[in-house]
Amino acid sequence: MNYDHIFSTHLQSLKAEGRYRIFADLERLVGEAPYALWHTPEGKKKVIVWCTNDYLGMSQHPEVIEAMMKAATRYGAGSGGTRNISGTSHSHILLEREVADLHGKEKGLIFTSGYNANEATISALAQALPNCVVLSDEKNHASIIQGIRSGKSERRIFRHNNLADLRENLESLDPKRPKIIACISVYSMDGDIAPLEGICDLAEEFKAITYLDEVHAVGLYGPQGAGIAAQYGLQDRIDIIQANFAKAYGVIGGYITGSELLVDYVRSVASGFIFTTSLPPGVVAAAHKSISILRGNTILRDKLWHNVEMLKGRLEKGIVPFQRVSSHIVPIIVGNAAQCHDVCDILRREHDIYVQPINYPTVPRGQERLRLTVTPSHTPEMIHHLVDALEDVWGRLNLSLAA
Amino acid sequence: MNYDHIFSTHLQSLKAEGRYRIFADLERLVGEAPYALWHTPEGKKKVIVWCTNDYLGMSQHPEVIEAMMKAATRYGAGSGGTRNISGTSHSHILLEREVADLHGKEKGLIFTSGYNANEATISALAQALPNCVVLSDEKNHASIIQGIRSGKSERRIFRHNNLADLRENLESLDPKRPKIIACISVYSMDGDIAPLEGICDLAEEFKAITYLDEVHAVGLYGPQGAGIAAQYGLQDRIDIIQANFAKAYGVIGGYITGSELLVDYVRSVASGFIFTTSLPPGVVAAAHKSISILRGNTILRDKLWHNVEMLKGRLEKGIVPFQRVSSHIVPIIVGNAAQCHDVCDILRREHDIYVQPINYPTVPRGQERLRLTVTPSHTPEMIHHLVDALEDVWGRLNLSLAA
Repeated sequence: MNYDHIFSTHLQSLKAEGRYRIFADLERLVGEAPYALWHTPEGKKKVIVWCTNDYLGMSQHPEVIEAMMKAATRYGAGSGGTRNISGTSHSHILLEREVADLHGKEKGLIFTSGYNANEATISALAQALPNCVVLSDEKNHASIIQGIRSGKSERRIFRHNNLADLRENLESLDPKRPKIIACISVYSMDGDIAPLEGICDLAEEFKAITYLDEVHAVGLYGPQGAGIAAQYGLQDRIDIIQANFAKAYGVIGGYITGSELLVDYVRSVASGFIFTTSLPPGVVAAAHKSISILRGNTILRDKLWHNVEMLKGRLEKGIVPFQRVSSHIVPIIVGNAAQCHDVCDILRREHDIYVQPINYPTVPRGQERLRLTVTPSHTPEMIHHLVDALEDVWGRLNLSLAA
Repeated sequence: MNYDHIFSTHLQSLKAEGRYRIFADLERLVGEAPYALWHTPEGKKKVIVWCTNDYLGMSQHPEVIEAMMKAATRYGAGSGGTRNISGTSHSHILLEREVADLHGKEKGLIFTSGYNANEATISALAQALPNCVVLSDEKNHASIIQGIRSGKSERRIFRHNNLADLRENLESLDPKRPKIIACISVYSMDGDIAPLEGICDLAEEFKAITYLDEVHAVGLYGPQGAGIAAQYGLQDRIDIIQANFAKAYGVIGGYITGSELLVDYVRSVASGFIFTTSLPPGVVAAAHKSISILRGNTILRDKLWHNVEMLKGRLEKGIVPFQRVSSHIVPIIVGNAAQCHDVCDILRREHDIYVQPINYPTVPRGQERLRLTVTPSHTPEMIHHLVDALEDVWGRLNLSLAA
């Protein structure tokens, strides 16, 4: 048995496909966003980051940092245990109340990550329901897919954001079978938004539980940043709203909210919740502060949207074929891992721009892309600089043009 | 379909079994360990914590807290992305080098939790190896079991720490099949230690990959706190050493170390690694500082062991039937969820002692227990007070006595 040979062959095939990942070794300095220092073998280089998920720069917000420091000073660097065994701090309880309140739900539950929240919750729900089937949007996140697998229920994939296909799937199923419809409000890699009202209607008609991932929406959409369901007044029709503290809120950690009963059930049985150390008090406090700030005013959101519109407006006038979607995310499909890598390489070397090439398994093969995210701290000059650089690279590499 | 009825029935059965979990709502104040404030509906109550996993109190170590604060001030409250998409900071790279060096391995890889590290790694390894079988100690942690399930390989459970049974299992398998032996060095709930040398011998004889979870050992055992494998000089014979930053190191997060090839493979394919936001810079810095401190001297370890021996010595003279194992963990089997709950309830109400009852699924049914952990900050008086309280409760509840 030559184990090394097997693992090495896997890695070689990634390299041959041009999708072997090299992580950008960054130093993001507080107060200097959107700049970061990129550590390379030749030394540090200052770049403008155009692919962060720290959408509003909250990770560098002075009050968020202060909340983390205060809690660390007062309560320590770690929680000391799992939630059940000495690791529930009063800060956890308060943050769970906050997220429940944000989404108009009875109860919240915090996890160490959004990934963990999705996997543990979906798996726990599916396991409770005999002969359950999960109807899953084909572009659902890996963590949702993993949750369905762990839950061992049947999985029915419906076409992305396609209500007719979802209906067909529902109609083909025994009405007596328990059903969960799992989808995302803002799809991270495509930036498009789910037809939530139609999904809620179908769920009601076919008596399915609704599970919604708002990871890329909270903080940015809806009243007080409560997300897309809140924006459309649909929060009451979603059984479980899942989201996290790692994107617009700028920290780390995931959560779910829902009825007292559902959340208490997940709390009581989900393996990925039970058997893991709870988030440190400093992380909890920082997340809490960030949510409060974004509930209180829309200054940063407004700035973000201003910049998003400026970026899209400039791109629209040029040759780079970006996807015009209604969210803040700007995907540009390249369609080939090697070319995608080349684009990002030139951007970095010649234009001091950092955009990470996105390849399989994060997107399907043939859908390799850049995924641009603009933040409130990007200036008009930076936006022009980015678009100019993209136009330059597109021309030089002879990439496909906007229709 | 009455979903609520199904979930509610599940919860009722937990309650009927006496294993419905009520989390202790704690405030652990820096400088006051092992005391904590317990928030109850009647107000706050000061208790002595006897069940933390913050074994050395590192979560309250001034230098660890300072490292977290400095990094948060300099780099922000969050990392801003997944490791591949803008979320690798230079601090991550440095911490990965540190853990690799600690275990004498070529490469390290950080995860958001130990749970995540086990699940993602084992699942990735098993998926690479056609027709793989994982030989798994029957007392392995939920995260290892979950990793085996996700990897979809065959699972062979061998009797706990039983080399003869492991050999029998290995002998019954086709020599050509890929094999992984997965076990733990210090078992969290029983406190016993794996016969590592025998396991390494069998792995060599039957050409199996060795996977070792040192979560409850790092910081406490072996030169520089590198764990049990290091203590016995077996690090070179273990292919993957997994551990975390959440127990003796007092923060949060998990990691693996191994050969450049194996770790690079896991980095490149493991879903639970790829699709999740990386740890915040402050967490990374705090973990790094904690490891450095515990590599540098054994002052806290020595104090801990002194206290462990004092606690075991006092218990030995009395009636409470604790398990005399060689690790720092002190399990006391009660064997019944309701009684276990009652013991802890009296300890809290009458003696201001916090010990969480441990029940299924954390331990098998019939094995419900207290799991005592002493720390360097517990005083001799506190140890006497605890043992006196236990003796009192054991007598009053008429629980089974030490043989």
